[in-house]
Amino acid sequence: MTKVDLTEIGQDARAASRLLARAGPAQIDLALSMVAKALVERGPEIVDANSSDVERARANGVDDHVVDRLVLDQERLASVAEGVRAVAALPSPIGQETDSRVLSSGMRLSRRRVPLGVIGVIYESRPNVTADVSSLCLKSGNAAILRGGKESIQTNTALARVFRDCLRKAGLPHNSIQLIPSTDRAIVEQMLRMRDHIDLLIPRGGAELVMRVAREATMPAITGGIGVCHTYVDRAADLEKAASITYNAKVQRPSVCNALDTVLVHSAVAGAFLPKIATLMGQAGVELRCDARALSIIGENGDGTVVRATLDDYGQEFLALVASVKVVDSLEDALSHIETYGSGHSEAIVTENYATATRFTDDVDASAVFVNASTRLNDGGEFGLGAEVAISTNKMHARGPMGLEELTSYKWIALGSGQIKEG
Amino acid sequence: MTKVDLTEIGQDARAASRLLARAGPAQIDLALSMVAKALVERGPEIVDANSSDVERARANGVDDHVVDRLVLDQERLASVAEGVRAVAALPSPIGQETDSRVLSSGMRLSRRRVPLGVIGVIYESRPNVTADVSSLCLKSGNAAILRGGKESIQTNTALARVFRDCLRKAGLPHNSIQLIPSTDRAIVEQMLRMRDHIDLLIPRGGAELVMRVAREATMPAITGGIGVCHTYVDRAADLEKAASITYNAKVQRPSVCNALDTVLVHSAVAGAFLPKIATLMGQAGVELRCDARALSIIGENGDGTVVRATLDDYGQEFLALVASVKVVDSLEDALSHIETYGSGHSEAIVTENYATATRFTDDVDASAVFVNASTRLNDGGEFGLGAEVAISTNKMHARGPMGLEELTSYKWIALGSGQIKEG
Repeated sequence: MTKVDLTEIGQDARAASRLLARAGPAQIDLALSMVAKALVERGPEIVDANSSDVERARANGVDDHVVDRLVLDQERLASVAEGVRAVAALPSPIGQETDSRVLSSGMRLSRRRVPLGVIGVIYESRPNVTADVSSLCLKSGNAAILRGGKESIQTNTALARVFRDCLRKAGLPHNSIQLIPSTDRAIVEQMLRMRDHIDLLIPRGGAELVMRVAREATMPAITGGIGVCHTYVDRAADLEKAASITYNAKVQRPSVCNALDTVLVHSAVAGAFLPKIATLMGQAGVELRCDARALSIIGENGDGTVVRATLDDYGQEFLALVASVKVVDSLEDALSHIETYGSGHSEAIVTENYATATRFTDDVDASAVFVNASTRLNDGGEFGLGAEVAISTNKMHARGPMGLEELTSYKWIALGSGQIKEG
Repeated sequence: MTKVDLTEIGQDARAASRLLARAGPAQIDLALSMVAKALVERGPEIVDANSSDVERARANGVDDHVVDRLVLDQERLASVAEGVRAVAALPSPIGQETDSRVLSSGMRLSRRRVPLGVIGVIYESRPNVTADVSSLCLKSGNAAILRGGKESIQTNTALARVFRDCLRKAGLPHNSIQLIPSTDRAIVEQMLRMRDHIDLLIPRGGAELVMRVAREATMPAITGGIGVCHTYVDRAADLEKAASITYNAKVQRPSVCNALDTVLVHSAVAGAFLPKIATLMGQAGVELRCDARALSIIGENGDGTVVRATLDDYGQEFLALVASVKVVDSLEDALSHIETYGSGHSEAIVTENYATATRFTDDVDASAVFVNASTRLNDGGEFGLGAEVAISTNKMHARGPMGLEELTSYKWIALGSGQIKEG
């Protein structure tokens, strides 16, 4: 393995970011359109690189479903290219001015949106992240330093090469996108210390990676992607909506952070609601881990889809077809459960009562709070942000889906005619 | 000295912040008005506490000008109370919704502004900071943990007592404001680790403290207050404006972060400008440290107010009646000097040329960029933000003066009628 000099990569990224911050949006969009085109035209080269990754993974006995997420064929590549084109088509966030005002001194003041600088991203297997993140960083005027997973190193290298070639052709610094050519574990350790070269670090991966970055990064970092998500079915819920929302939140894609983990049901409707949802969930193969009161309503069945919950089943992110269920006697009990066990990611209530809905949205402290909707909708695409690099559970800077605006900073611009500080 | 349990303080702050986040703005404003009144009414108690601090400082041989900053007499107290009243009168930032939209699914979405939670502040001698910071934190719905300087411990304790008494009377948790009753140096070390109990740490003090917090804090922290500020006098400058702006930026209050450190002068106007400013600055007792070209124009004079600069004089924050001077041959040279030596705080250009002004504001990367105005205006009060807790040179979250909005986060509120994730 080649010895990798991260300092040089960091310096190159900083220099590239300065040039990129001065580039016009048209030039960046041109580069992104070229990338979208090249991803398809150079498909064979990328698919080829991907095949070596896939073969190596299979030879190493990697799980089939992990291998499946690794595969990038010409069809998936077309969809990745479509994603890049969609980012190019978004309005540029850079240069927008907000809070503009003329002060009493006559000085004109505004906040102007500018790029953050250099964004570091540490991610795991799926190679489409390379293209998604690179296009969002470029569109927002930022340089990126990427550290992908070892399973997809060949694919990531091929994808980064396409970006760098197109940047060069568009007259932009190719070092705006750099993939670290090593998946040595020590690289992560080094990135965490690159305070002078990385302005924001985004971990995309499992809870272990995210928590490590939160603890050890010496620069600002996004904490996100860990969602212990509740849906509370209130006594005033429309039970049809409740069943559909709860089912969707759990089943539509169980492996993601905004999927449901725990259903809280008001005791007044538990008898009517739980059998309904137990049938639906059972058909989808969901295992329900129930407290004693829920169990007394739907019973433990022989095929193991309804079982008794242990305390560990609350506050746990299942990322699988498993949900815990608890009967509560009031909105207060539901709020208190969510405060204790939630991770501040996505929380939902199903109710037709105005005061209850208001109290829930006021009190719950999470990146997104839903009334009568599925927590799965906590997503940059769904929220109309175009795309997202992460869903943040930080309170500083960005919370919830991070789209283009959330990858920017601002500077104050003050246009005067001789104003000085009085006094 | 009593042993201080920071964990208990942290837990109390967290609990208080949850209650405070649910309090209405009217109740918070009531508490702040009560504080403003009590600060004057209980003046003798505070002035008394302050006298012990001042006596102890004098006995310890503390510098006269430091002692002067420490003094809080009935008159200064009235002005502190006025500041608290002014914060109470500002509109509450909490609960404002932005980016509201109805998605194509019919779900109504908005970002709602919420408090950050618990703010930690580490500050040095001036006791008015206790009142300023406490009122801004309360107004923005945040609890605060304060660690003041050892010189003003009695005064700070008396001020915090007033806040806590008024909070209690207004029906709000008195632990919303907690002053750590110890100025042991180990306290700072402990605060830096209180990731679970402090959401944002703000250091207010010298460069050493600020840099230590930036390096060692385990939670988000503001880096600010370090300003290496330039004013570039362009070839197209109105030299009267240039003299007035440069003089103001250096002399009006030299001890602060947005005061001028270096004057860059275009060679085409150096001959006309430098003698003018040398006279003005000389009268104010400013020492000018000049490069060879500037020196050849204004000469080294006997009384030591014009001397030869060393390389260390560029990129240095003087915080005193000292400025470095350099002659440059182009806007590019000025930009490049600022990029190399600036700290991203406050930068200014004096010019009547449109293209030059545009290029300067586009290219300079700082929290505030001024055209034809004094860098001393980079201030929350001047910018109409009401007041400020700090001037941030971070790019994440807040940049420049941090007023009430910058002490908040947001959550997404999604109001649906049964929406689920398709697919």
